[in-house]
This record gives sequence, C-alpha cells and structure tokens, in this order.
Amino acid sequence: MTGRINTLAIIGVGLIGGSLSLALKKHNAVGRVIGVGRSQANLDEALRLGVIDAIATLEQAAKADIIFVATPVAQMPRVFAELAPHLGATSILTDGGSTKQDVTAAARAALAERFSQFVPAHPIAGTEKTGAAAAFATLFEKRKTVICAEAETNPHAAGVVAAMWEKAGAEIHRMSAAEHDDVFAAVSHLPHLLAFALVDMLAEMPRSADYFNYAASGFRDFTRIAAGSPEMWRDISVANRAALRGQLGAYRARLDAFDRWLAVADTDAISAIEAGYSRASKARNAWQKHIEYGEPMPPLGGVSRDG
Amino acid sequence: MTGRINTLAIIGVGLIGGSLSLALKKHNAVGRVIGVGRSQANLDEALRLGVIDAIATLEQAAKADIIFVATPVAQMPRVFAELAPHLGATSILTDGGSTKQDVTAAARAALAERFSQFVPAHPIAGTEKTGAAAAFATLFEKRKTVICAEAETNPHAAGVVAAMWEKAGAEIHRMSAAEHDDVFAAVSHLPHLLAFALVDMLAEMPRSADYFNYAASGFRDFTRIAAGSPEMWRDISVANRAALRGQLGAYRARLDAFDRWLAVADTDAISAIEAGYSRASKARNAWQKHIEYGEPMPPLGGVSRDG
Repeated sequence: MTGRINTLAIIGVGLIGGSLSLALKKHNAVGRVIGVGRSQANLDEALRLGVIDAIATLEQAAKADIIFVATPVAQMPRVFAELAPHLGATSILTDGGSTKQDVTAAARAALAERFSQFVPAHPIAGTEKTGAAAAFATLFEKRKTVICAEAETNPHAAGVVAAMWEKAGAEIHRMSAAEHDDVFAAVSHLPHLLAFALVDMLAEMPRSADYFNYAASGFRDFTRIAAGSPEMWRDISVANRAALRGQLGAYRARLDAFDRWLAVADTDAISAIEAGYSRASKARNAWQKHIEYGEPMPPLGGVSRDG
Repeated sequence: MTGRINTLAIIGVGLIGGSLSLALKKHNAVGRVIGVGRSQANLDEALRLGVIDAIATLEQAAKADIIFVATPVAQMPRVFAELAPHLGATSILTDGGSTKQDVTAAARAALAERFSQFVPAHPIAGTEKTGAAAAFATLFEKRKTVICAEAETNPHAAGVVAAMWEKAGAEIHRMSAAEHDDVFAAVSHLPHLLAFALVDMLAEMPRSADYFNYAASGFRDFTRIAAGSPEMWRDISVANRAALRGQLGAYRARLDAFDRWLAVADTDAISAIEAGYSRASKARNAWQKHIEYGEPMPPLGGVSRDG
C-alpha cells in the first residue's frame, strides 16, 4: 500500500470522516470508501453526495485496509469493542478523536494483542457544521494532523496513516498522547469551556436580555466557539478531564490574581494588571503575525518576562 | 442648534474622536472641528487628513458648542478639571468613555454647579486600531450610543448630544450609569479580562511554544480581543472594577462548578456539564440569528432553564 488505499472504511460519516473521503477521492488516493453510521438518513445523503461508495456494517468495515473511526470520542470504546473480533489481520485502525489518552486506552483494552494495528491520530480541523453534507475535500489542506504512536504501534501502520493524511493535504506532527492532551486542553478544550461558561452564566442572569442586546463584535468573536455542539464538547471535556482540570486550575489562579489586583487597585496592583495585559497583547500580536505571515514566534518566556 | 453644530472641539483625536468628526463632516452637520491632544504628530496628521480643521488649546476648546472628550477614561478627571474654569456658559460637554459611573463622578467633582452641562455618553464602536489616521466616517453607522443622563443633566444638552450621534449614524439608547457599567462589565470588560488572562497564562508556561504552535481558529477568535491596548483595558478594568469584580465573581463561581463536575464525572455531573454547554449553545445560536437576521431573542430564562 505505497500510495493508494484499496478500501477505506469510515465509521461516522460526518464532517471529519466525510471530508477525509472527499480529499482522498479528489487525489485519486483511494479505491473504494464504505461508510458505517447510526443515522440511515445521513448515510443515504453521504451515498447520494458521493462521499461514500457504499453503506456497510461494522463487521464489513473491520476488513478494510484502513478503518477510520470518526465518531464522537465517547462512542469509540464501543466501536473498538465491536470491531475487535472482526479486525482484518493486515487492516489498520485509526481515529480522528480530539483526545488521545482515553481513546488509546480504550483501543488497548478492546484490541488486546492487535493493539499494534491501531494508530491514534487527531486532524486539527473542523467547522461548526456537522453531518456528511458538511464535508468538503479541502478541509485538511495545510492543517496539522497529530499522530500519537505508542510503543506498541506498528511503525508501518503509522507510516501508512501519515501518508494518508498527507494525501489529504495535512502536515504531520508527532507527539505523545499525554503531550497532545495537555496542548489541546490549553488551546482548545479550555477556551471552549470558558466560552460556554460565560454565555451560560449571562443567559441565566436576570438582566440577560440587556446583556445580549449590548454585546458587540468582541463578544461575538470571544463566544463563537460556545455555539459548538454541547454533546461533542461534553465528551471531549470529560474524556480529557485530567489535563483540562490542570489547565483550568492554572487559569482560575490567574483570575484570582486579577481579582486581587482589582480589589486593591493601588499603584502596584494596577501595574500588575497592565503587565499581565501587556504580556498577553504582545504574545497575541506576535502569534497573529506568525499565523498570517509566517513570522517566527519570539521566545515567549522572553515576551512574557520583558513585557 | 437644531441640526448643525457650529464648533465641535475634540479632546483626544483618535479613532473615536476622529471618526465622530469625519461622520459629522460627511453629513454636513458641523461647521468647524478643533482638536486638542498630547501628541503633536497625531494632531498634525489629523489636520493633514482633514479630520480636524485646526489645532487648539484646552482653554479654546472649552468655548466650543460641543466639547467631546475622547481620551482614555483615566485621563478624563484631569481634562475635566482643566476645562472647568473655562467652560462656555452654553457649551455642552460630553464624553465617549467606556465606563460611566467613574467618568460621571469625575465630571461632577470638576464641574460643580456646571455639571448640568455634562452629558455622559458611550458610543459602542471601535476597532483594534488607534490614532487619527485610523478614523473613518462610517464607524458609528447602525451602532449603538448609550447616553447615561443624571438627574441634574440639562435635558436640552442631552437632546443635542443624542442628535449629534444620530447624525453620525448611531442609534440612541438610554440607561443609568450603574446599569451601563454592569452591562458592559458583563459583555465587554469581563471577556477582555478573560482573554488577556488566558494568553498571559499560556505565554508564561514552560510549554508555551507548543501551545501557540497548535492553537487554531477557535483560539484565534477567542483571543482576538487580547490583542487590544493594555493601557486602555487596564484603565477600563480599574475604572469599572466594582461592576467587573461582580461579574468576575459570578464567573469564577461558574468555573468552580464546572471544575467540580469534571472532578466527579459521574452521570449527574456529566449531565450538568452538558446542560451548561447546551444552555450556552442555544443562547449563542439565538443571539447569532438576532444579530445576523434581526430575529428576536427568545426569553433567555426560558432558554436557560428548558435547555
């Protein structure tokens, strides 16, 4: 399999699973794509749109060359358990879950001696939309896919999965599952929790109508991610709760400091508020230049301590 | 003055002050605009760009028909004190500060028996840019301007200021200074503090380079407001610290609840997380339809409790 995948099975033909199929089809990198899912209507739509070539059972999917599990992470333990007894001897199983330690543990438990056939992965892409109809071929172009191989992971299998994502346009990054979960707790899962918590708090307040009436563009952008799927983010938050609580604890301590400074509001406290805002503003502006123009990030310890 | 302003003085010819001038000039609603500021270079640029017609002293500005103070809020007490002894008998003084109780208190202290000539106001508009060169005539079109008249405020003066903002394209809203400060603590000042605090925290962490490397579009939008001016947001945070700490306290309590639910992670706790995310998602999606398509907001108590 040095290039073309004969049969790809997608478990969960939504935005992520469907877009991978369309990207590989576009680059003629896959022969046949079969889809498995809970919603017949969604599978019919996927078939109609050419996102998949056939609807399959889990047992059929388990014999594919590559089986991509793109369900919400909370469903993966059950999916792995149902695939395990039927998994083809040379089939490669991989996933697209947003958390990696829990998914890897579930795969290890379900697959036992076949755990080497499993390649934990996370494509860093998405939109607010869901379902096969939301899929598009360029979703992963120039985006990162993180592969979190374990000691037991078959290196050939990891290479095949990496090649598949590169065909779909992604850039491959490798790190441990623990590193992955810490990084995404910090830059994705925590911001989602913070945005959900703010909108939830405001919506429940007696003056909520006034609040939403005067909210403007800053609020719009800050809370955009609070429009996301409650079920998906509940699953991610719970699945990655150890790392998320670590980052949340650090954040609550930072808020405590700002609250103390606001309570005191003497010269030193006001300077401390400004120093914090200033470190943030410098880092955020440097990062914007990095993502927009490819400028290197300055050393952030330096940014943060010289600010 | 039923329509046209003879002389408008702008103290602080930046984005807000300069844009008001350009908007009024565009609609032929002002005769002459004079500007006062700390930076000669900025004033020269404002003159060159036609944002102002002349550079003036505070003493000259104090005799204008309308004097608009558009400096950062922390500078307003000094500006009011310097204007007070020279204030024209029929001149109307107004401001564009993001906080209203502190600005009103400063004006009351500085102006004494002339406090009735002061109309506290807050145009809800802005961009990340600063300085006269950033000003543009349409900044306030279809945006809200909040007027927070006090018991002593001359109703004629308040009407003139309202008419001026309507000429600039804004929609006038009226509320008390205390209501204003609570609303904007909730939907603007707190989100800014939260975004600054997150980026500051991440920038100071040992793995900050990894964090910024894997941050994606959700992080970009959530933290956009952390690119703002540290000085301006320090001033706003401190000026409105009573209301801001109130909202921050409610938010910390909400984060504490999410943290407890993540720690327990039993069926009830997971349901509570989902319920919070779901209330937020429903409110945020309803608000998006409200701002995009003008759809009425559903009763939020209903959204929050039925969710």
